[in-house]
Amino acid sequence: MLRVCSRRWPALAARRFSSPPAAPAALEEDGAGATTAAPPRPLRSHHLGPREDFPSRHIGPRDHDQQRMLELLGFRTLDELTDAAVPENIRLKTDLNIEPPTSEYELIKRIRNVAEKNKVWRSYIGMGYHNCCVPHTIMRNIFENPGWFSQYTPYQPEVAQGRLEGLLNYQTIVTDLTGLEVANASLLDESTAAAEAMSLCFRQNKRRRLFLSHLLHPQTVSVVQTRADSLGLTVDVGNVFEADFSNRDFAGVLFQYPDTEGSIHDFSAVSERAHANGTLVCCATDLLALCLLRPPSEFDADIAVGTSQRFGVPLGYGGPHAGFFACRQSLVRLMPGRMIGVTRDAGGHDAYRLALQTREQHIRRDKATSNICTAQALLANMASMFAVYHGPQGLKEIATRVHNTAVLLSKGVEESGNIVTNDVFFDTIRVVPGMDPAEIHHRARQKEINLRIFSDDSVGVALDETVGAQDIDDLLWVFGSKETTDEVAERNNIHEKTIMSSPFRRTSPFLTHPVFNSHHSETRIVRYMKHLENKDISLVHSMIPLGSCTMKLNSTTEMMPCSFQHFTDIHPFAPLDQSLGYQELFEELQQDLCAITGYDRISFQPNSGAQGEYAGLRAIKGYHEAHDQGHRNLCLIPVSAHGTNPASAQMAGMKVEPINVSKDGSIDVEHLKAKVHEHSESLSCLMITYPSTNGVFEETIADICQLIHEHGGQVYLDGANMNAQVALCRPGDYGSDVSHLNLHKTFCIPHGGGGPGMGPIGVKAHLAPFLPSHPVVNPMADMGRHSKSFGVVSAAPFGSSAILPISWAYIKMMGPKGLRKATQVAILNANYMSKRLEGHYQTLYKGKETALVAHEFILDVRDLKKTANIEAVDIAKRLMDYGFHAPTMSWPVSGTLMIEPTESEDKEELDRFCDALISIRKEIKDIEDGKMDIRTNPLKMAPHTQADVISSEWNRPYTREQAAFPAPFVRADTKFWPSVGRIDDIYGDKHLVCTCPPILPAY
Amino acid sequence: MLRVCSRRWPALAARRFSSPPAAPAALEEDGAGATTAAPPRPLRSHHLGPREDFPSRHIGPRDHDQQRMLELLGFRTLDELTDAAVPENIRLKTDLNIEPPTSEYELIKRIRNVAEKNKVWRSYIGMGYHNCCVPHTIMRNIFENPGWFSQYTPYQPEVAQGRLEGLLNYQTIVTDLTGLEVANASLLDESTAAAEAMSLCFRQNKRRRLFLSHLLHPQTVSVVQTRADSLGLTVDVGNVFEADFSNRDFAGVLFQYPDTEGSIHDFSAVSERAHANGTLVCCATDLLALCLLRPPSEFDADIAVGTSQRFGVPLGYGGPHAGFFACRQSLVRLMPGRMIGVTRDAGGHDAYRLALQTREQHIRRDKATSNICTAQALLANMASMFAVYHGPQGLKEIATRVHNTAVLLSKGVEESGNIVTNDVFFDTIRVVPGMDPAEIHHRARQKEINLRIFSDDSVGVALDETVGAQDIDDLLWVFGSKETTDEVAERNNIHEKTIMSSPFRRTSPFLTHPVFNSHHSETRIVRYMKHLENKDISLVHSMIPLGSCTMKLNSTTEMMPCSFQHFTDIHPFAPLDQSLGYQELFEELQQDLCAITGYDRISFQPNSGAQGEYAGLRAIKGYHEAHDQGHRNLCLIPVSAHGTNPASAQMAGMKVEPINVSKDGSIDVEHLKAKVHEHSESLSCLMITYPSTNGVFEETIADICQLIHEHGGQVYLDGANMNAQVALCRPGDYGSDVSHLNLHKTFCIPHGGGGPGMGPIGVKAHLAPFLPSHPVVNPMADMGRHSKSFGVVSAAPFGSSAILPISWAYIKMMGPKGLRKATQVAILNANYMSKRLEGHYQTLYKGKETALVAHEFILDVRDLKKTANIEAVDIAKRLMDYGFHAPTMSWPVSGTLMIEPTESEDKEELDRFCDALISIRKEIKDIEDGKMDIRTNPLKMAPHTQADVISSEWNRPYTREQAAFPAPFVRADTKFWPSVGRIDDIYGDKHLVCTCPPILPAY
Repeated sequence: MLRVCSRRWPALAARRFSSPPAAPAALEEDGAGATTAAPPRPLRSHHLGPREDFPSRHIGPRDHDQQRMLELLGFRTLDELTDAAVPENIRLKTDLNIEPPTSEYELIKRIRNVAEKNKVWRSYIGMGYHNCCVPHTIMRNIFENPGWFSQYTPYQPEVAQGRLEGLLNYQTIVTDLTGLEVANASLLDESTAAAEAMSLCFRQNKRRRLFLSHLLHPQTVSVVQTRADSLGLTVDVGNVFEADFSNRDFAGVLFQYPDTEGSIHDFSAVSERAHANGTLVCCATDLLALCLLRPPSEFDADIAVGTSQRFGVPLGYGGPHAGFFACRQSLVRLMPGRMIGVTRDAGGHDAYRLALQTREQHIRRDKATSNICTAQALLANMASMFAVYHGPQGLKEIATRVHNTAVLLSKGVEESGNIVTNDVFFDTIRVVPGMDPAEIHHRARQKEINLRIFSDDSVGVALDETVGAQDIDDLLWVFGSKETTDEVAERNNIHEKTIMSSPFRRTSPFLTHPVFNSHHSETRIVRYMKHLENKDISLVHSMIPLGSCTMKLNSTTEMMPCSFQHFTDIHPFAPLDQSLGYQELFEELQQDLCAITGYDRISFQPNSGAQGEYAGLRAIKGYHEAHDQGHRNLCLIPVSAHGTNPASAQMAGMKVEPINVSKDGSIDVEHLKAKVHEHSESLSCLMITYPSTNGVFEETIADICQLIHEHGGQVYLDGANMNAQVALCRPGDYGSDVSHLNLHKTFCIPHGGGGPGMGPIGVKAHLAPFLPSHPVVNPMADMGRHSKSFGVVSAAPFGSSAILPISWAYIKMMGPKGLRKATQVAILNANYMSKRLEGHYQTLYKGKETALVAHEFILDVRDLKKTANIEAVDIAKRLMDYGFHAPTMSWPVSGTLMIEPTESEDKEELDRFCDALISIRKEIKDIEDGKMDIRTNPLKMAPHTQADVISSEWNRPYTREQAAFPAPFVRADTKFWPSVGRIDDIYGDKHLVCTCPPILPAY
Repeated sequence: MLRVCSRRWPALAARRFSSPPAAPAALEEDGAGATTAAPPRPLRSHHLGPREDFPSRHIGPRDHDQQRMLELLGFRTLDELTDAAVPENIRLKTDLNIEPPTSEYELIKRIRNVAEKNKVWRSYIGMGYHNCCVPHTIMRNIFENPGWFSQYTPYQPEVAQGRLEGLLNYQTIVTDLTGLEVANASLLDESTAAAEAMSLCFRQNKRRRLFLSHLLHPQTVSVVQTRADSLGLTVDVGNVFEADFSNRDFAGVLFQYPDTEGSIHDFSAVSERAHANGTLVCCATDLLALCLLRPPSEFDADIAVGTSQRFGVPLGYGGPHAGFFACRQSLVRLMPGRMIGVTRDAGGHDAYRLALQTREQHIRRDKATSNICTAQALLANMASMFAVYHGPQGLKEIATRVHNTAVLLSKGVEESGNIVTNDVFFDTIRVVPGMDPAEIHHRARQKEINLRIFSDDSVGVALDETVGAQDIDDLLWVFGSKETTDEVAERNNIHEKTIMSSPFRRTSPFLTHPVFNSHHSETRIVRYMKHLENKDISLVHSMIPLGSCTMKLNSTTEMMPCSFQHFTDIHPFAPLDQSLGYQELFEELQQDLCAITGYDRISFQPNSGAQGEYAGLRAIKGYHEAHDQGHRNLCLIPVSAHGTNPASAQMAGMKVEPINVSKDGSIDVEHLKAKVHEHSESLSCLMITYPSTNGVFEETIADICQLIHEHGGQVYLDGANMNAQVALCRPGDYGSDVSHLNLHKTFCIPHGGGGPGMGPIGVKAHLAPFLPSHPVVNPMADMGRHSKSFGVVSAAPFGSSAILPISWAYIKMMGPKGLRKATQVAILNANYMSKRLEGHYQTLYKGKETALVAHEFILDVRDLKKTANIEAVDIAKRLMDYGFHAPTMSWPVSGTLMIEPTESEDKEELDRFCDALISIRKEIKDIEDGKMDIRTNPLKMAPHTQADVISSEWNRPYTREQAAFPAPFVRADTKFWPSVGRIDDIYGDKHLVCTCPPILPAY
């Protein structure tokens, strides 16, 4: 086939190129231009093929920049720096025992092979997880788009109006479909939402008994029971229609609609009886079913919960998906999770922001309604966009198709000699087989179909929007029918059998707001998504230096596997032999995380750091109980701890005792000692963050751990700051017993604009038996009867499995040296910034001996209140004018700013950020010096919007240019504009609006 | 495994839901809210499963909007409208014979199956195509990102600075690496670039003889020879070292460095002799090799060409990739293709724009330097970003690794008894096997390795950056070696054998500009890509209503397969049994395109519309010659035709005779008749666009075709306006013999910011034998000896194969009815806009009887020059302030604007655009009325930048708000800002700078 000249001439001597060649040179890092002569290195096979250079992509500063930064700090090498920063007695002296790094290209090949060990069967298992048609344009333009997935939680609403609008849409969807008045911006999953609902009931009426329908999904029952245990609540599981509330001791009742077997019941009477006896009514439900069914509000439910997974989010072997939570207006202040509300900005315009934040754990600590920090914002936004794209009509059509399909299947199954036990149903039926159940399962396997298997040999079938005629043909065959779908359809007028001809038919409209009735062409939805995206600062614009939140690179290579079909399309309850790829991934990731932390076992079940805390504390509790130390229930927590710590301890049923912090920010060891001695008998554990939330490696950590152990306690080390430790020191080595690992911080899972998170916990061997189990697929099965699990914390056995490839890939590509260098550069970057800001701002806490910070540091700006009437918030808002997201505000020390640059930011970006802060300090100086008005100045008026500076009116004592372009690097072509002026939080909380306002800004 | 309650209670009667249900209702389109009662439709299997609703995603206006729009036009139905618009005698009376539509989800399943019929072997064939490590972040954030791929050609530089910067970087890469002074922004591929180089030589010195090295890639020789044929040039192929230029009749000489067999020669002497005799020197070369090798400039080449594919662009079975072209400054005005240059804007700031446009075909028509419209902008930008990401050091490292690998392989192959015929080489060697060649091929197949096979049984091996030690181990085994890579490496100091120790070692620096030395972390490159993307208007922002350019939706589902590994990773010269998936795709797409056009055969080889024209005209020429009518060489072209038409005719060696256009815009049939009669003997063909470039369905088209045929001519129907015809009429039915199909317009391949394009041609059966062939993989092989191909137009046998899935998917998802509706709505949208603008602007041409336009229309604004000193360009620039990209300016009628909305834009967007135009008309009225200054007014000063309106200085007779927010829908949160002020074209052409300016705007 190839036509090629075969003649060939000898190469002519290179006559003209007469300059003698330099000594043969291997390539050295010598900047652009000619190569320098260096002794050639002997060639080895690893010098071939794609460069294993991911660490140099992940880490921001180039080697020569690192050198300059080290010089400024007075160190020669990174090792010198971190040897100084990290206490000698905890320092790791060897490389991590993980694989050498693999290149980005090899990694994708490898993970593709791992993924393909999973088998994508058709799963009709249901139980809260349904396949769906994920709109490709939403998948690509939201889930796979760094402009959406690399955003932070919208705590700075002026640069977050896009995702706030998306989440407000989500709340509107949930309230419209459930018929309830308010909804939050998502919770972790359906089961934890149910647990939160029951906790709310308890908080509301202080009763200590709960009634659960036996027709809830089993994982929901387990999660609620587990949570109730530690709160000391009693749980009755039974037939809600026979429940007797007349003793007036039930806090709440929870049932499912449609129930786990698919049946639809009228709960009006239950509700009536419950309410008559002061019991709150909670309903787990299904958003797609509600497109055809009367909403729970019509039988007077007080709370509705569920998952929005089937609104366009892949199965992902259990997650991440968004759980939802809606309730009556009267319960709103007890509602857990984040809520978006409408308020106004400084200019009086409508604007969105997080409402009623005072409910949240970072404010209320152990008094919080919940310990939940992480929502599932990215997934809620996908679900929200799914509804925007389809609109009410499209959703109804999908629901109708699914329902019709189920009715048709039901007819065909019945006609071929089986019994369908449901009377009215939406998409799920339970079948008592007419033939040998083994034959049914055999046939199902032949067709690569998964069904739900009940313990009485009956079979559950849950259909979804992907199911077509061929699938029904196959299912009919599985159940012994000899007919095709069309044959069944022809003989039956199924319209007579549907919900539409039942009293359950929905009559109330939903999603009538214009936003749900406009964006139905792909062109429109793409523009809408882009319009929202462009309002929000994310890592694609500039650094987001949030102390304690580690906004590092989320690389494309890490993200890619999350879209692989063999990861996305697996039902969490599929037989284990269909998820071998996932099992391999879990096993490898567990090994790597154990190598990194010094722990012995990992539980992947917790879906967030806070949930990890809760699970870890429960494991400690279980351990004490197993050793007849059940009375140990005191948890010591430094006052500087993350708010989730006390909130989690409270949720785990522990008593919290605060430990003081010294003036220098370190834990007050004397106070700790005193407390330990005082409570030696009841001491359950110490919860401690390391390096401390103040950004310092305390010298005493190993001693502290020892002290706790000596008094029979366990050490829970909060993994929030693992990014300062990886490959430098290991909690498991210096005395900690358990930690959660915020994979969405240290291990590169993106923040997604406020979720998903992933908070697996690592434990030493003695705690392993107490890790979470699961009623359907038990992740502790390998421990057999040694498992003494305290219960279940998530709906899915392995939490948000589908995002674990991100962390797996990060570790595999970095290798031991890369991870170590990342940590070192994270510490370098923080110290460099702290140093550059010296003389302008004061870093609040540093190491006593070393004068070094760890990977983050606190700027003390409290004095400026006195000298210039300037507060941390003013600096935060003014930073937006410079194109930056604010650092963490007023945490862990009120009135300060905490900065964490991470290793992914390069010197240029760090310098720009420092320049901005220094420039702002000069602006403050002008106020101090009386050169600038104390009220009307660029800080107090910040952030400045286009409307502000492009107005004909301008009567401020500074120029438009100073307002909008305050530094040379803020130019028209690089400017990121806040889309609203400064938010008025108080107004919004006073005038609470948490669904789409009547006239949404038209787009 | 499932733990489930098996007890079950009967459903209670729905007591409280007492309202009697409405009649069972199937779902009807009834807007949001309650369903209306409609007689239920009987259920059929196609009512199950995912909705086949892609047409409703692709088409913008909802059904109810279409109804309102039709009403305005006085029609009741779409059919009524298009029956009126399309002449009865050509109207298609049946549905297209293509498959019924498939859903987006089914489509992806199906195309995945098709793709997986391709086999991804390791291809070491070389010949201009090399596997490479496509940086995932560039793939995702450029190639898969609608913000990059849905941009139009940067003819409006004020809203295109991002991709202009990317392309300027590209030009800098090409000039730096080749050492030449100027480069263009890419050509279609290496072979056409070579053909353009040789044409340039001919244009420059008017000599009619060319010398080609016999060691060029075979496809390059073929493409140059084909092109030379029609220009009447003679081609000598031979050993350039023995070439005799002394007769002074050679226009140019072309050789390859490294040559097709991999060897590196010094061409200094050749060059010297050529120059001494007035012959230009052209060098085909390899950018990666040039990172280590002395550049062609150092042996005095005048022109360098090649492909930048291996700079991070996938193989894609042949394309799309960017070809490059560089030359001496003195030849710049003869250079083909687009060139980016630096100029200044109205504010005196540096800005980029297309330089020297007067060279281009749309201005110079048959005097153009080339007929090329389409570049490969998207791919050039990928390659450009590849170099920005790696930097000079990274590129050198890659090149060194590849080279070392090749040296090692060569040693191992030699040591095991084979002969390597190359003396000095970069990455490619030719091996004379020591063992039976059949055994080598057998072994290669066993290892799934493709090698190049020479006709003398020697074997070519071309390595690339993906090749690792395992690959070399396998190759060593294939060549009979018993050693591993490491064993070979240990015994040989390969550093002594490399280019680095040869006189060819590069000593000159390259890519020293800061832009190539800054963005090496992924965080940085992502921000840089986003920074550029956000400067450019694309379809993610607003409609781009470019007459004749059909900027319609490029849906995600259509785009997804282009990233499938089984499409991206196939070498174009891989054995056909490894590309069965592609063959199936080609076959199905051919069938569908034939059904749509009425033609009998498709050639996919042309990579752009212009190339399709050239190929089609060459086929006509071949046909005439085969029928002893070789003297027929006159091509009639209406003066209103696309500039490419005459340019292509000229390139095909035809004489062009223009045909007049009547005052009403239609072709002057009398003039045509006269010309046909006058040139009856020499008539080769008529080139005509339908509907006409004036936007009208002319009634006479069938008669015209008949007239041409009666006089022995052929009809070439320009497919540019197929979007007005699909499923309404078929060129093949009403008399056309051949058309190109701009798949990048009508069939949804995105414009990519100025390429890739794809211009396959469809022909009636009698022309089929004359379609393009190929020297390596002949796409006409099935015709056997019936093929009388005129030659080869592209480097790859099937053109840009990797983007064909887009058009395939579009047709499959739309189905016959969807395609018809799309065309109807395209016509509806154009007529609706024309109607809405009535009274404000005049539509220049409409159908004589119907007063309807086709799918586009021309606004005549020429009078405004007199009344208000306003020209089309002022309106175009002012539209940017309203957030819109300008329509086509001054084409086909000078001083007018041509608008093509396409079917994908919905009524709201059309209305917004009309509102903007109407608002601008009011602004013009103010000038006419003397209320606004004739020089300093919002139109003349447009577009307004942030720097303009946020300046403290403001002394214009209109407000800042009028400047920046001239309509209610232009708000701060929706505003798209031009990043520079109005471009000064003349300044830039006078002060030509076509590489990165010394101080690139720092980012």
